[in-house]
Amino acid sequence: MEKIDGKNLKHTLTPEEIITAEGREITLCACVHKIKKSGGFYFVLLRTGRYVYQTVYRAGKCKGDFAALCEGAYISVSGTVKKEERAPYGFEIELTDFEILSKPKSECPFDISASHLGVSIETSMEHRFAALRNPEERAAFKICEGVTTAFSSFMQKNGFTEIHTPKLTTLNMEDKKHAFRLKYFGETAYLAQSPQLYKQAAVAFFERVFEVGSAYRADKHNSTRHLNEFISLDFEMAYAAGLHEIMAVITAFLKHAIKYLNKNYQNELQILGVTLPEIKTIPCITFNEALEILCKPKKQPDLDPTDEVKICKWAREKFKTGLIFIEKFPQKKRPFYVMGSKGNPKLTETFDLIFDGKEIASGSLRLHDYDELTVKIKRMGIDEAQYAPYLDMFLCGMPPHGGAAIGLERLVMQLLGLDDIRQATLFPRDLHHITP
Amino acid sequence: MEKIDGKNLKHTLTPEEIITAEGREITLCACVHKIKKSGGFYFVLLRTGRYVYQTVYRAGKCKGDFAALCEGAYISVSGTVKKEERAPYGFEIELTDFEILSKPKSECPFDISASHLGVSIETSMEHRFAALRNPEERAAFKICEGVTTAFSSFMQKNGFTEIHTPKLTTLNMEDKKHAFRLKYFGETAYLAQSPQLYKQAAVAFFERVFEVGSAYRADKHNSTRHLNEFISLDFEMAYAAGLHEIMAVITAFLKHAIKYLNKNYQNELQILGVTLPEIKTIPCITFNEALEILCKPKKQPDLDPTDEVKICKWAREKFKTGLIFIEKFPQKKRPFYVMGSKGNPKLTETFDLIFDGKEIASGSLRLHDYDELTVKIKRMGIDEAQYAPYLDMFLCGMPPHGGAAIGLERLVMQLLGLDDIRQATLFPRDLHHITP
Repeated sequence: MEKIDGKNLKHTLTPEEIITAEGREITLCACVHKIKKSGGFYFVLLRTGRYVYQTVYRAGKCKGDFAALCEGAYISVSGTVKKEERAPYGFEIELTDFEILSKPKSECPFDISASHLGVSIETSMEHRFAALRNPEERAAFKICEGVTTAFSSFMQKNGFTEIHTPKLTTLNMEDKKHAFRLKYFGETAYLAQSPQLYKQAAVAFFERVFEVGSAYRADKHNSTRHLNEFISLDFEMAYAAGLHEIMAVITAFLKHAIKYLNKNYQNELQILGVTLPEIKTIPCITFNEALEILCKPKKQPDLDPTDEVKICKWAREKFKTGLIFIEKFPQKKRPFYVMGSKGNPKLTETFDLIFDGKEIASGSLRLHDYDELTVKIKRMGIDEAQYAPYLDMFLCGMPPHGGAAIGLERLVMQLLGLDDIRQATLFPRDLHHITP
Repeated sequence: MEKIDGKNLKHTLTPEEIITAEGREITLCACVHKIKKSGGFYFVLLRTGRYVYQTVYRAGKCKGDFAALCEGAYISVSGTVKKEERAPYGFEIELTDFEILSKPKSECPFDISASHLGVSIETSMEHRFAALRNPEERAAFKICEGVTTAFSSFMQKNGFTEIHTPKLTTLNMEDKKHAFRLKYFGETAYLAQSPQLYKQAAVAFFERVFEVGSAYRADKHNSTRHLNEFISLDFEMAYAAGLHEIMAVITAFLKHAIKYLNKNYQNELQILGVTLPEIKTIPCITFNEALEILCKPKKQPDLDPTDEVKICKWAREKFKTGLIFIEKFPQKKRPFYVMGSKGNPKLTETFDLIFDGKEIASGSLRLHDYDELTVKIKRMGIDEAQYAPYLDMFLCGMPPHGGAAIGLERLVMQLLGLDDIRQATLFPRDLHHITP
């Protein structure tokens, strides 16, 4: 019988911790990233969960069995810390001993230690478990961590409560044709395309809520910017005075996220060779203004991807920013639950946020009055019975509210200038990939 | 054309902010929680996203149309802050004006303002959108927020990287019979029962990872402690020296979570009438020791729910704690990927954490050697082809590793002493509920 006290937890030493141990011996577990001969000794690069450290093996000075060492092995080492300006993080470790904990069964399909893996996304997907070991490939996912952490802390600081809503549902807010369907104990259920209904319900009791959760779209896209399963950064807030208040929350979050990433993820930004944009303000134009800028006819109900690219180019020239809000889209392509614009019932209180040619967020004010909602559902020819559980919440009263959703992978893709959204997704789900 | 700068975000005033405005007028948006006549005036209790504030309406002093006011309306008020020791948080607000923003269509099916709703979970499920407006009902979900926030910050502080893994998969680590199945562009996919495979894969490149994500079990349970969709707090770590190191991480997390909740969620703990347990150490016994304590025969392959209740009673008497680790379960009921115990191949390096009679976590050391894994898969008669993508990752080498999963709703249920796990789930998914 033992008692577990949870004290003295071990962790892998960071560069800052190692450098303070200069001249002393430390121990470390890591993966053998690269072995390079250099005159009478060997450089053994060791990959930890975040860093690659330079160690040196000299035959007479280290007890470990060098012949047994190979790239890809996981080992435990001891060695002396020496200042070395030419090494990463300004130190190297002179090995005194090592023990091999685990060896690979076969060689990796590509050179994990390359500064740039240089394989197609298709090849990377085929050997996903290997590709992600490359420091540049994995770096994007530390940035994903940074963005979600920044999102959660920003939201909580601003009075939003974190919620978890079901992804199995019978209620689809967007479009059943493009939802994954399954049997749930005899009933037909769908994978939620968004937490829309549930986050709306939650403003009645939490006033402001956010969620970091999976969302599903069964669209047969075959593009570099769509996923069939993605992480949605959702929020919803009561008493929003207007669309611009919701945009202000997104703007403030993006500023906070960039500050947070610059402070805590320099290591990864340097590996990726990325300088994050500085955001001061984000311009906002109406859909009709966008059509004028694009010299397009007014009857067009939505912008297409090329329009989005052109608008961002225009914004970059005019405002020196790749980010732009477009608001007040026509009702036609927007879901029933959005609020119509006062004075112009054909327009809606909706917006998209475009970032260097790609939509990364969208939001709206929602209808909150039971009568207005039911009238609109009837007018749009929607089956009212299907939305009965949704309408239920409005019977007890709902505050005026609105919200938005930000696509995590899209945001990270654009922040880092990645070519393909799959590079911002650990195990992408698309038309061709349900495995691994 | 406007520019959104994200500055001067609004938020609802906290009690601390209101009390500092004593003698001054403030404005506030909130829901009319309760109207109570008291002599020549009315108490109007206002419910914000977290608090219920006492305001006072006097006919001559407030411009708002009192006749139009009703419980459940969402309103914007202005009023003067007055110290009042008998009121919640030590103040009340003397109303000077209000505007009704939204009114309910019909009355709530029960008294939202009751300190204890007092309806069955079945009734609460039937009127979920109403029930969650009750301050006691919603309080559990602030605690859920606190636990996940504490989990994320604890894990990151200890060198774990947050990951998001797919919930749509063809790989099932546990048991296909009890997985939800769906068609994914012509292929058969499953909803992940756990992120097991993916978090194991991630230790190869991030060393230590954690995830807060949905998990799915298609079991036909009809109990107060099972959900078919739940939030799993998962972590996985390379180089764990043994099972006790993984238990130590859980113990340290629980200590941290309780400290964090006590610091930041006193408001909800008081509403719920809960004093959180103090954890110093968590005792750990072996499965065989547990059988001895229970006076049960050695051939039993697992503990049943009554055993778990008895063991916790025993722990409470002997160690004054309702928490106990049980380790080294027989191979029979444990999945193929767990490591066998050295010296006794019939036992495994596995553990469960039981909290007042209910399992809240389980973990194990995993096999990390390709040859050992394939031999075991064959010996257990498992279709090797099915696990080919899983086995792939071991070809490139894997560090020794282990991990665990904590059920969020189970943990919150036990921390708060709730009777039913549905009370710790906003919109529960069980045998009878796929809606709302």
